[in-house]
Amino acid sequence: MGALDEGHLARELENLMNLELDLKDESEITVEIEDAVKVLLQGLGEDSNREGLKKTPHRVAKTLREGTRGYRQKVKDIVQGALFPEAGLDSGVGQAGGAGGIVVVRDLDLFSYCESCLLPFQVKCHVGYVPSRQRVLGLSKLSRVADVFAKRLQDPQHLADEVCSALHNGIKPAGVAVVLECWHIRFPEVGRSFLDHSHHTAKMGLQGWVRALVYSGSGVFENENGDVWGDFLALLKFKGVNVEKNHTLTTAKLCWCPSSSMDVPVSNGHVSTRNCCKVSSKTGPSQSAMIAAVAAILHSLGEDPLRKELVGTPHRFVQWLMNFKKCNFEIKLNGFNATKPNMHKENGNANCNQDKMQSELNIPFWSQCEHHLLPFHGVLHIGYFHASGDKPIERSILESVVHFYSCKLQVQERLTRQIAETVSSAFGVEVMVVVEANHICMISRGIEKVGSSTATIAVLGRFSTDPTAKAMFLQSVAEITASAE
Amino acid sequence: MGALDEGHLARELENLMNLELDLKDESEITVEIEDAVKVLLQGLGEDSNREGLKKTPHRVAKTLREGTRGYRQKVKDIVQGALFPEAGLDSGVGQAGGAGGIVVVRDLDLFSYCESCLLPFQVKCHVGYVPSRQRVLGLSKLSRVADVFAKRLQDPQHLADEVCSALHNGIKPAGVAVVLECWHIRFPEVGRSFLDHSHHTAKMGLQGWVRALVYSGSGVFENENGDVWGDFLALLKFKGVNVEKNHTLTTAKLCWCPSSSMDVPVSNGHVSTRNCCKVSSKTGPSQSAMIAAVAAILHSLGEDPLRKELVGTPHRFVQWLMNFKKCNFEIKLNGFNATKPNMHKENGNANCNQDKMQSELNIPFWSQCEHHLLPFHGVLHIGYFHASGDKPIERSILESVVHFYSCKLQVQERLTRQIAETVSSAFGVEVMVVVEANHICMISRGIEKVGSSTATIAVLGRFSTDPTAKAMFLQSVAEITASAE
Repeated sequence: MGALDEGHLARELENLMNLELDLKDESEITVEIEDAVKVLLQGLGEDSNREGLKKTPHRVAKTLREGTRGYRQKVKDIVQGALFPEAGLDSGVGQAGGAGGIVVVRDLDLFSYCESCLLPFQVKCHVGYVPSRQRVLGLSKLSRVADVFAKRLQDPQHLADEVCSALHNGIKPAGVAVVLECWHIRFPEVGRSFLDHSHHTAKMGLQGWVRALVYSGSGVFENENGDVWGDFLALLKFKGVNVEKNHTLTTAKLCWCPSSSMDVPVSNGHVSTRNCCKVSSKTGPSQSAMIAAVAAILHSLGEDPLRKELVGTPHRFVQWLMNFKKCNFEIKLNGFNATKPNMHKENGNANCNQDKMQSELNIPFWSQCEHHLLPFHGVLHIGYFHASGDKPIERSILESVVHFYSCKLQVQERLTRQIAETVSSAFGVEVMVVVEANHICMISRGIEKVGSSTATIAVLGRFSTDPTAKAMFLQSVAEITASAE
Repeated sequence: MGALDEGHLARELENLMNLELDLKDESEITVEIEDAVKVLLQGLGEDSNREGLKKTPHRVAKTLREGTRGYRQKVKDIVQGALFPEAGLDSGVGQAGGAGGIVVVRDLDLFSYCESCLLPFQVKCHVGYVPSRQRVLGLSKLSRVADVFAKRLQDPQHLADEVCSALHNGIKPAGVAVVLECWHIRFPEVGRSFLDHSHHTAKMGLQGWVRALVYSGSGVFENENGDVWGDFLALLKFKGVNVEKNHTLTTAKLCWCPSSSMDVPVSNGHVSTRNCCKVSSKTGPSQSAMIAAVAAILHSLGEDPLRKELVGTPHRFVQWLMNFKKCNFEIKLNGFNATKPNMHKENGNANCNQDKMQSELNIPFWSQCEHHLLPFHGVLHIGYFHASGDKPIERSILESVVHFYSCKLQVQERLTRQIAETVSSAFGVEVMVVVEANHICMISRGIEKVGSSTATIAVLGRFSTDPTAKAMFLQSVAEITASAE
């Protein structure tokens, strides 16, 4: 496996770099990153002194340092003292224990940072090794070693190779195999809105994400068609992980990070009416400063911003951020005139029979958490009452409203309220909004609550006074959710 | 909510206790726990100097201190600086944002320690609150506050109440609601084997565990039948969590920790032939020392071993451990005479057509990880070839062998090998063993890899030389696993 030698070289370089960084104080590094984040916030048109953003530079610096702590960890420290003597079967009789019997740990949830765009990506890691020399490794160390390399800027194949070679060098077993399933957030193309691929992301969770499945093997796993790979893959199959090795590997290499499609600047800035957060196709002076700031962050993290794989990263990360540039454009509602509000504040139940409840469910959205500069995304459900004679509001109009309020630095609570208020005042309807989201800041960082999700509700007019109306809408959402499972 | 006042009292006592503990050095506390663990290992008949156990006292001390770090954390430190001003809707118009719109975070994976038996239990935590005073809390803080109380000795209801009251005091919202789903390992009764309820635990995962569903509410959630509970439960339903409040609360109170059934000593130590690890029904001198050692551990963790809920805990924990006492009894194989081995070492394929592959799948087991003194459990699959004329080995016999090797301090690699070796030599067959397990030491502790699972394989005779035989057996396991989903 070529990765073994490369891994060795990489580690030496890394140690040199760490030496340089060690000379810097941790708080000095944090301040460097904080300053760079302030430049990014300014570039986004934000006031970095407003309440929600005041501590964002500090939070981002802490998160990034923590999320790349792998640069400062050594595999040797982890493996040392966790290798246990374990008798194996007599050779010739069979394989088990400390000799030849495969050991597999499946479904380790990790997250890592994409070296191409600096966004986190999710990883499900499966590790196997075949012990030799009557020694086995404490099971948790397989996970801890994998995490050392996940907590760096990575690409899936490189991550798999590094974990594989580090374990091989650390345990000196008969062989190591690593299979990674990785999920990366989709990118909108420059000058195009998120909505253009919204149909792919209609369900919450990881559907619609870019998925890569990669593997790496050393020792007895170097032969991709060997029996021992068959054993490993059979054990993964027990857990529903189906690996078709050659096919998926190629796929991953070709189209992993969606930001790669953004590298060619768009010369004709054609912007659809839906696209509220128009991004300039040229890199203006403020974007140059932002790009330099991201390069400075890479340096502070102990990386070389001139490394081949990182050269375009600052540009790509800034392009991602610019999707969330603050904008105060008026929303153009395609010929929809805001009708006069017709709210039933005092007497919620009065017109129940005359008006009809309408709903638009599962409107997908992407947003950016203003506390951590990390994405959150999910679906919105909008219910409203309108007079029985009126035409329902077009879904595309509601999508535009959602898009306008999500494509900025946000918090979910505010997003929910703003959409409810806007729909209510623009169309004169009583409205209920339910937002269900996954926050990357809840799955990455120290907290790592992979399965968690957040729901928020806003109710206006009748929905806030009539529990039956609210319950009816929630029930309709539950039915859709259940049938989608 | 009565829990508010109790919570306050508990906190004051706790602060006093922390004061006392602060005077002790962390390393001093670690040494105290290590010494106590050595007593436990001796009581289990183990040599605490053997390789696999040498560092176990240190690992257990570290794990326990880390697992009860909540005693040394303050909610104020977490919430401080994470309350953000967020405008709400005008009162009278509706509810959202900083006023009245519910915020729910679902599916937070936590683990805690059972105060009744000192074993960890798994928690899925759902938290909701209704903001007031135009302030919202950073989402991750809901999880971090819950974790402060999870990382203590707990009972589910008490945990829910404490999280609820701490959040209420910390955020000062209109109300807080907490729903916890908790899973606790089953206990064998004294003098009875694990096998007696093995049919309940045949599938891996949390099936067959004791489950408790509890809830707690403050402020607007104090009224259990209020509309706001309806909203919260509707949002949980979206994620498949169905709460029938009154029913489940009662259930949890009656029969949560399975160790409670052990409190009455068994006077007639009736032991079935299956029961290899016979536990004395009386508490001998070595058990008294073990009980005192566990009480000392409780004290070292900052708890009062005389607190009502903890008085029986050392006894119960020791009873649990005694299931895994080292024993060198001969396995009685119920009239089965060990036949002469009839291994096909040299010519694996020769008798393929004459002999028939038999298999016993999904044999459940419980064991105790010798590195962390924490349970691991799962299912075993055994395949073997026997001459076409022979009777297949009875499943109950194989279960006895599994039971014998799992009921001790173990590592999964060794368990796999020992079972393969014993089946092979006792019955003269060529054998393959696959062990699939969940390790509590992989889901609790710092690593917290909730969904992970470990698989190991041992192959003897033909299975080690004939890839087709091995693949055939793995395929038969895969089919069973797939049909059980």
